[in-house]
Amino acid sequence: MNHPIAPLAVRRAFPAALLDSLKSQFAERASTTAAVREHHGRDESPYDPQLPDAVVFVTTTDEVQTVVRLCAEHGVPVIAYGNGSSLEGHLLAVQGGVSIDLSGMNRVLSINAEDLTVTVEPGVSRKQLNEALKDTGLFFPIDPGADASIGGMSATRASGTNAVRYGTMRENVLGLNVVLADGRVIKTGTRARKSAAGYDLTRLFVGSEGTLGVITEITVRLYPQPEAVSAAVCAFASMGDAVRAVIETIQMGVPVARVEFLDSLTVRAINRYANYTFRESPMLFFEFHGTAASVKEQAETVQEIVAQNAGADFEWATRPEDRSRLWNARHNAFFAMLQLKPGCRAVTTDVCVPISRLAECVIETEEDLKRSSLLCPIVGHVGDGNFHVAMLLDPNKPEERAEAEGINERIVQRALRMGGTCSGEHGVGLHKMGFMIEEHGEDGIDVMRSIKHALDPNNIMNPGKIFSFAA
Amino acid sequence: MNHPIAPLAVRRAFPAALLDSLKSQFAERASTTAAVREHHGRDESPYDPQLPDAVVFVTTTDEVQTVVRLCAEHGVPVIAYGNGSSLEGHLLAVQGGVSIDLSGMNRVLSINAEDLTVTVEPGVSRKQLNEALKDTGLFFPIDPGADASIGGMSATRASGTNAVRYGTMRENVLGLNVVLADGRVIKTGTRARKSAAGYDLTRLFVGSEGTLGVITEITVRLYPQPEAVSAAVCAFASMGDAVRAVIETIQMGVPVARVEFLDSLTVRAINRYANYTFRESPMLFFEFHGTAASVKEQAETVQEIVAQNAGADFEWATRPEDRSRLWNARHNAFFAMLQLKPGCRAVTTDVCVPISRLAECVIETEEDLKRSSLLCPIVGHVGDGNFHVAMLLDPNKPEERAEAEGINERIVQRALRMGGTCSGEHGVGLHKMGFMIEEHGEDGIDVMRSIKHALDPNNIMNPGKIFSFAA
Repeated sequence: MNHPIAPLAVRRAFPAALLDSLKSQFAERASTTAAVREHHGRDESPYDPQLPDAVVFVTTTDEVQTVVRLCAEHGVPVIAYGNGSSLEGHLLAVQGGVSIDLSGMNRVLSINAEDLTVTVEPGVSRKQLNEALKDTGLFFPIDPGADASIGGMSATRASGTNAVRYGTMRENVLGLNVVLADGRVIKTGTRARKSAAGYDLTRLFVGSEGTLGVITEITVRLYPQPEAVSAAVCAFASMGDAVRAVIETIQMGVPVARVEFLDSLTVRAINRYANYTFRESPMLFFEFHGTAASVKEQAETVQEIVAQNAGADFEWATRPEDRSRLWNARHNAFFAMLQLKPGCRAVTTDVCVPISRLAECVIETEEDLKRSSLLCPIVGHVGDGNFHVAMLLDPNKPEERAEAEGINERIVQRALRMGGTCSGEHGVGLHKMGFMIEEHGEDGIDVMRSIKHALDPNNIMNPGKIFSFAA
Repeated sequence: MNHPIAPLAVRRAFPAALLDSLKSQFAERASTTAAVREHHGRDESPYDPQLPDAVVFVTTTDEVQTVVRLCAEHGVPVIAYGNGSSLEGHLLAVQGGVSIDLSGMNRVLSINAEDLTVTVEPGVSRKQLNEALKDTGLFFPIDPGADASIGGMSATRASGTNAVRYGTMRENVLGLNVVLADGRVIKTGTRARKSAAGYDLTRLFVGSEGTLGVITEITVRLYPQPEAVSAAVCAFASMGDAVRAVIETIQMGVPVARVEFLDSLTVRAINRYANYTFRESPMLFFEFHGTAASVKEQAETVQEIVAQNAGADFEWATRPEDRSRLWNARHNAFFAMLQLKPGCRAVTTDVCVPISRLAECVIETEEDLKRSSLLCPIVGHVGDGNFHVAMLLDPNKPEERAEAEGINERIVQRALRMGGTCSGEHGVGLHKMGFMIEEHGEDGIDVMRSIKHALDPNNIMNPGKIFSFAA
C-alpha cells in the first residue's frame, strides 16, 4: 500500500554523531544491520517495510530516556517496538529514525493480588502475564488474539474477545510510566481503582500509538478467575440471524464473557487449517464466566435466544480441553484465513458501530463483498458491535490492493454513517489516517494536533501516524 | 477557607462592553442581580462565596458558543454551572467572570434503548434521567448521592455508590459535545461501545472541571434494570472488621452492586435525622443486582464473609420500599451529618487507596480523628477503596477551619503514601490543588499545564482551579 504513506515518507537525516553516541552507550545493543532493521520496519499490515535507521534494544526506563534524549537533540524520530503484531502500519519508520525495541523490558514488576492489580514492563506479552498470574487465582482478560505486548496493547487501546465483559485497555489500565519527547518521565495514575484528581493523562496516553511518549511501565487491573467457565458454539442460516441473537443477548443484560462471530468462509478456513469439522455456515462462539449456577443460567438464557433466532447445532464445551480447542480455532482464524490464498496478505477493516446498527452494517457489507473478486472472510467481536473483514490480496497485484482499499473505504463510511468508528481496537496507524477528519471533524483533529504540539513540538515521537502533523 | 484561594483570587476587569453585548443578546437571561450572582458564586463546600460578575442562562449550544466567544474577546473567565452540588469550590468565580447556567439545557435528547445509550443536555439531573428512562427497562447507575447534573458529573469524573459494579463517569461517558475556549464546538467519541481511533478526547474532558471547555451534550451508557435486586445491612464491632469484610468480597469477585460503609457517628446522625433505629456501630449497606438466583447466591456468599469478620445483625431488604428507605438513609447522610452541629459547614475528604491498604488507612485515620475536637463522621464507597470524612466546623471559628484542614492534609498524605489519590470522585476544584504536585509530580502537572495552554492559552475557562496556571 504505497499511497497513504507517500506524502509523509520524507526520511529525515540520521546524523553520524547520533549513531556514534548510541553505539558508545549501547555497544552491540544499538544495531544497524539490515536484518534487524528489516524486522523492525514492518508489522502484520500489508504495507511494504519502511526501515528505521537503527534499532536499540533497551532494558530499563533510564535507557529509554537516554535514547529519546539523544534523538531529541538531533530531531530524529523514535518508534517504540513491542511484539510487532500491529495491523495498521504503526511500526513503520516512514520518516526513518530509531526503533526502540522494548522486548527486553519484560519483567512482571509486582503482582498485587489483594488489590487485583499488576505492574509490568511494556515488553511483557499477555500470555507471559497470564502465565505469571497462574497461581494467584487471578487473570488479565484483555485478549486481542495475537500474543501482543502489554505496552503495545496500551499504546493502541487494544481489546479483543473478552471486551464485552471486561472492557478494553481504556478501562483496564490504571497507570503508566511514560518517557516524554524531551526525555522526562511522568507517572500517570495511581493503584487506586478510581480518581478524580486532574486531567486523565493515563487515558490520553492509552491509544496515542507512541506519538506522545514511550510507555515504560503499565499497571493494569486483574480479575478473579471465574469459579466456572463454559463455552458453546452454534450455527445460523444467515449472518443477520447470528447478529440478532447477539444483540438480544446484550440487551437482556446477560453478562456473557465472550461472543464471537465467524462467517462461513472463516469457518471453512479454520476447518482446513487445523482439521476442525464445524458446519460451514455463520457461527457464534460464546463463553460464560461466573459461579456454576450463574454460568448455567446464562447459558440457558442464551440457548433460548439462539433458538428464537433460527440457531442450530448448539453445542456445549465445558471441559477445559474442549474450550481450549474452541478458542484456539478462533485465535488462529487470522492465520487460517491467510492460508485460503497462499502468498496473500490481508487488508483488515476494524469498524465498530452501535449494536442496533450491527445487523444492518454487516448485511450491507456482505452484499458489497459479494461483488468483489477477493476472498473476504469476516469475524467479529459482535457483543461490542465490532467486526473485521480480512481482504486477501496478492501483494504483487496493484489492482487487488486498490480493490481492497475501496472496500475498506466503503465499510468505514458505512460505519461512520451509522454513528460508529473507523477503528474499534486496532488503532489508526497509517491505514486509517484518511478517515480521521471524517470521524472527528477538522476541529476535533485540530485539538489532537494541539495536544501533539504541546507534548512533542519537534514531532519526533512516531511521526506520520494517526493524523498529519508538521513540527 | 481563605488561604488556598487568596493567591489566585485576582479578579479580572469586567468590561461594560461585554455586559452590553450579553444584555443585547440575552436580555433578562443575562443577570447581574446580587441574589443571582450569590447563588452562582458558591457550592456545597465551606468556602466563602466568590461572585461572578454576571450569570447567563442559556438554552442551546449556540448560546454557549456566543457567551464563550464574547468572553474570549474580552479575556473574561467562563464558569459552567449545573446544579451547584460541587463540594470542592469548583464553581467559585475566584477571578470574576461569567457563570453560564446550564440548568435550562435539560432535555433528554435521544434514548437509544437498543444500544443501551442516551444522549442528554448537561443540565439534566441524574434523577431526571432515570425518571425519563423508567419505562425503557434501563437505568443510569452513576449515583453520587446529590441530584447532580450529568454535565457536572462528567466535568468532575463523579462516581458514587454504584461504581464498584458499574464504574465511574470515566467508564460510562461515550462521547461529548464541547464548546472550546475559542467558541468552536467539537464532538468527541461516537455511540460505538469502543474505539481506538485517535486520542481519547472524551476522557480528557471528563474530569477537566470546566478548565478546557464547556460540555454541552453527553452520551452515556445505560444498563438493563436488574431482574432482581436485594439489599442487606449489617453491623460490626470495629471499622477494621467492616472494611476487611469488603476487601474479601471484592477479592472473591462477588459482583456486588453497592457496598457502603458508615461509621457509628454517621449511623447516629441518620437515626436522629429521620427516625431510623440502626445499631450505632460501624455498618455496611450492600446491594445485589442480577437474576433472582444470582442475587441469592451473591447475598449468601457475602453473609458468610460478614459472619467470618464478626459482623452481626445481618438484615435483608428485598421489598422495594425497604430498599428505598435504606438508600434514602445513605443518601441523606451528608445532610444528616450537618445536623449533628447546627450551623456548621463540612470540610470533606475524598481519598481513594488500593483496597489492600484500605483497612490500614481507615484505622490510622480513626486514631487521628480521636485526637480532634471536631465531630468527624466517616462514610465510604469502600468497594472502590474510597472514603469520606466530613469535618464539621463552625465557619466563624478560624481555629476549627485550621484544624479541619490539618486533618485533611494528614489524610491525603496518608493516602498518597499508600499508593492512592487525593480525590476519588469529588474532583480537585480549589480544595485539593495543594496536593496535585505531590500526587502527580512536577512533570505530571507540567504536562497538564501544557494541555491547558494548548487548549485555553488565555486561561478563560474556569481559571484558578485544579492547578496554578498563568496565561
